[in-house]
Amino acid sequence: MDPRVHEHAEILVDWSARVAAGDTVVLSVAEGAHDLAVAVAEALGERGANLVATYDSDELTRAYLRGHDSEFDADPAHELALVENADVYLRLGGGRNTTATADVPSETRQAYRRARTGIREARMDTDWVSTVHPTRSLAQQAGMAYEQYQDFVYDAILRDWESLAAEMAQLKTILDEGSEVHIEKAETDLWLSIDGRTAVNSAASVDYDSHNLPSGEVFTAPADAEGTVVFDVPMTVDATRLQDVRLTFEDGEVVDYAAAQGESVLKEIIETDAGARRLGELGIGMNRGIDRVTDNILFDEKMGETVHLAVGRAYDACLPEGETGNQSAVHTDLITDMSTESTLSVDGEVIQRDGSFKWEDSFGGI
Amino acid sequence: MDPRVHEHAEILVDWSARVAAGDTVVLSVAEGAHDLAVAVAEALGERGANLVATYDSDELTRAYLRGHDSEFDADPAHELALVENADVYLRLGGGRNTTATADVPSETRQAYRRARTGIREARMDTDWVSTVHPTRSLAQQAGMAYEQYQDFVYDAILRDWESLAAEMAQLKTILDEGSEVHIEKAETDLWLSIDGRTAVNSAASVDYDSHNLPSGEVFTAPADAEGTVVFDVPMTVDATRLQDVRLTFEDGEVVDYAAAQGESVLKEIIETDAGARRLGELGIGMNRGIDRVTDNILFDEKMGETVHLAVGRAYDACLPEGETGNQSAVHTDLITDMSTESTLSVDGEVIQRDGSFKWEDSFGGI
Repeated sequence: MDPRVHEHAEILVDWSARVAAGDTVVLSVAEGAHDLAVAVAEALGERGANLVATYDSDELTRAYLRGHDSEFDADPAHELALVENADVYLRLGGGRNTTATADVPSETRQAYRRARTGIREARMDTDWVSTVHPTRSLAQQAGMAYEQYQDFVYDAILRDWESLAAEMAQLKTILDEGSEVHIEKAETDLWLSIDGRTAVNSAASVDYDSHNLPSGEVFTAPADAEGTVVFDVPMTVDATRLQDVRLTFEDGEVVDYAAAQGESVLKEIIETDAGARRLGELGIGMNRGIDRVTDNILFDEKMGETVHLAVGRAYDACLPEGETGNQSAVHTDLITDMSTESTLSVDGEVIQRDGSFKWEDSFGGI
Repeated sequence: MDPRVHEHAEILVDWSARVAAGDTVVLSVAEGAHDLAVAVAEALGERGANLVATYDSDELTRAYLRGHDSEFDADPAHELALVENADVYLRLGGGRNTTATADVPSETRQAYRRARTGIREARMDTDWVSTVHPTRSLAQQAGMAYEQYQDFVYDAILRDWESLAAEMAQLKTILDEGSEVHIEKAETDLWLSIDGRTAVNSAASVDYDSHNLPSGEVFTAPADAEGTVVFDVPMTVDATRLQDVRLTFEDGEVVDYAAAQGESVLKEIIETDAGARRLGELGIGMNRGIDRVTDNILFDEKMGETVHLAVGRAYDACLPEGETGNQSAVHTDLITDMSTESTLSVDGEVIQRDGSFKWEDSFGGI
C-alpha cells in the first residue's frame, strides 16, 4: 500500500479526530475508499478505539431510493442509536462514479434528507471529520491523471498542520479584532463589515471546530456588504458550470448579479429565499498544498491565495453568543483568485497582497 | 446485473427474513458482496424498510485486530445500540480471499469474539439471515470456475422454498413422532435415540427458525447413539482435510475414532470436552439444488441425499422445554453420503433408501 495512505490515516485519527482509547468510532466507507479504510482501521486498533464500519455506497443508496416510494420513516431507530452512541464519526469519501445517483429524483433525495434530520444532528454532535480517498472517479472529475491526482490529494492532506494552525491563528486574531474588510482587484471593490464576529481557524481538527481534512482556511460571517466582487475561479454547482460570477451588494444584499456562464443556476440560488441574497461566509484559503482547482469544494475553497464568499446560511461559530446570523436554505461558496494584482485589507491595513500575507517574506513593501 | 442476483435478494428479503414496511434492517456487506447488496437495498426500499449497511470487510477486520493490543472493550455501545435497535440482520457473505485473516493470532480473534458476546446475543434476537454472494474467492475454495460456481450457488438458493418446506414437514413429523433412527450403509450401522426430541424444518426462513439461505435440512438432537458410522464426504476443519472419519459409539459416547486423513484434528475436536464425545445433531440434507461438495458447510450440510451428524453442542429448539441438551464448546458437522446402498429407518420403517424418500416416486419397493 502507498505509505501516504497510512500517513493520511494517522493524521485523520490523531490530528483531526483526536481519537482516544475506548472511543466508539463510526467509519463511513465509500465504495472506492477501501484502502484508506484498512489503514484507518489499523490506526483505530492501535489507539484501542471501537470500530463500526458502515458501507456508504452511492450505488446502494441509489437502488434503495429508487425502490422506495419516498414516504421515509423519520430517523430510523437503529441508525439514530448507532450515531447517538458514537464519539467519533469519520467519513471516508471516494466513490467510483461522482454521478452514481444522477437518476434519483431530487424530490426523493430531499425527502430522504429531511427524514434524517435527527441523525444528521446527532452526527454533528460527535467529533466528526470528512475526508476523501483519491479515486479514479475523483481524478476524472478534476481532469487529472490518477497518479497526478493522488499527488494532488496527498499534497493537500499531508501537511504540517500544527504549523499551519499557528500561521492561521495570526489571521484569526486580525479578523477577530477587525471591523471592516476591503477586497480590491480588477473589477472587484468590496467592503465587508465583520465587527463583533468571530473567525474560525479551520485547521482540519475537531479541536479547532474544523471538520474537513484537508482544511486550511480562516472564515468568519460578514454582517454587511457593499460593492462588487467577481469570482474568477470556475466551479460546478448542480451539474452546471459557473464562470465569472459577478455580484453587487448594497446594504448587505445582492442588488445585481451576472455570470459569463451558468447564470440561470446562479439566479436559482440567489432567489431561493431572502437569506440567499446575503453573505453567510467570508473564507480565506491558506492551504498552499492545494495549488489548482479540481472542482471539488472540499479542496477548492481551501486553496492558498484565494478568498471565497458564500451566499446563504452563516455558521453559528462565527456569531456572538445568542445572535442569529444569516438564515437560508442555501450556502453556496464562490471563489476569487487573490494571487495577483489584489489586496485584502482589514481596517485600512493591507493583510494580503498578491497572495502573500504581511508576515511572509514574500510580502513586498507597505 | 445477472437477474439471479435480484431473485436472490427477493427470496432473502421476502421468504427468509419476512421484511415488512418500517422494519429497521442492518445489511452486513462483505467485500465481494456489492452487487447482491445493491439488489437487496432496492428490495428493502420497495418494502419501505429502513437500511443501515455495515462494511464487513475481512481486510478491515484483519488490520484492526492486528493493530489492537487484544484488550478489547466489552460490547461497544454504538454497535450494541445498532443491533439492539434492529428488527432484521442480513449478513451477505462473499469475500475476496477466504484466508484474509490468516495472520491474525487466534488468541486475538478469540478475545475479540468473547468481548462481543452481548452484540452476538442481540443479533440472535433479531430476524437474522446469513447468505453468500458467489465470488471468485468462494469459487476457488470450491475448486470451481467462477460461472460454474455462480450456477451452483443459484441452484441452491433459487428454489421453490414453499414446496420444499412442505416436503420437509413430512420428515419433521416422522422424526417428531419417532423414537429410534437407524442408518445403514457399507461400514455404517448406527442407532440413534430421538425419543421426545423435536425436529426443525430448516426451510431458509425465520418463520421456520431457520437462518441460513440456502438451507434445506431437517435436524434434531439425538439423545443416545450406538454403533459405527463412516463419514465419506470430505471436509476441511481448521484448515485440515478430514477424510473418511469413522466414529464408534457406546451409550451415546465416542469410544473409538479414526480417519483416513486429518486424524490429529479429529482427536483435538473429540477431546475438547466431555460433550464433544457425544452427538449434538442429526441432520438430513434435502436441498437437491446442492449436488456436490464445495467445502463450505453452509452448502455441504444441506446437500440432498446426505445425512450429517455433529459432535458437540445441541440446539435448544430440538429439546423439550427446560431440558438441557448436550453441552460443548464445539459443534462439528460430519457428512455421510446416502445416495447409494444405504437406508435411513425410523422405528423400523425405511424412510429413505438410496437417497429417495418414501413419498417420492423414485423410492423403490418396500
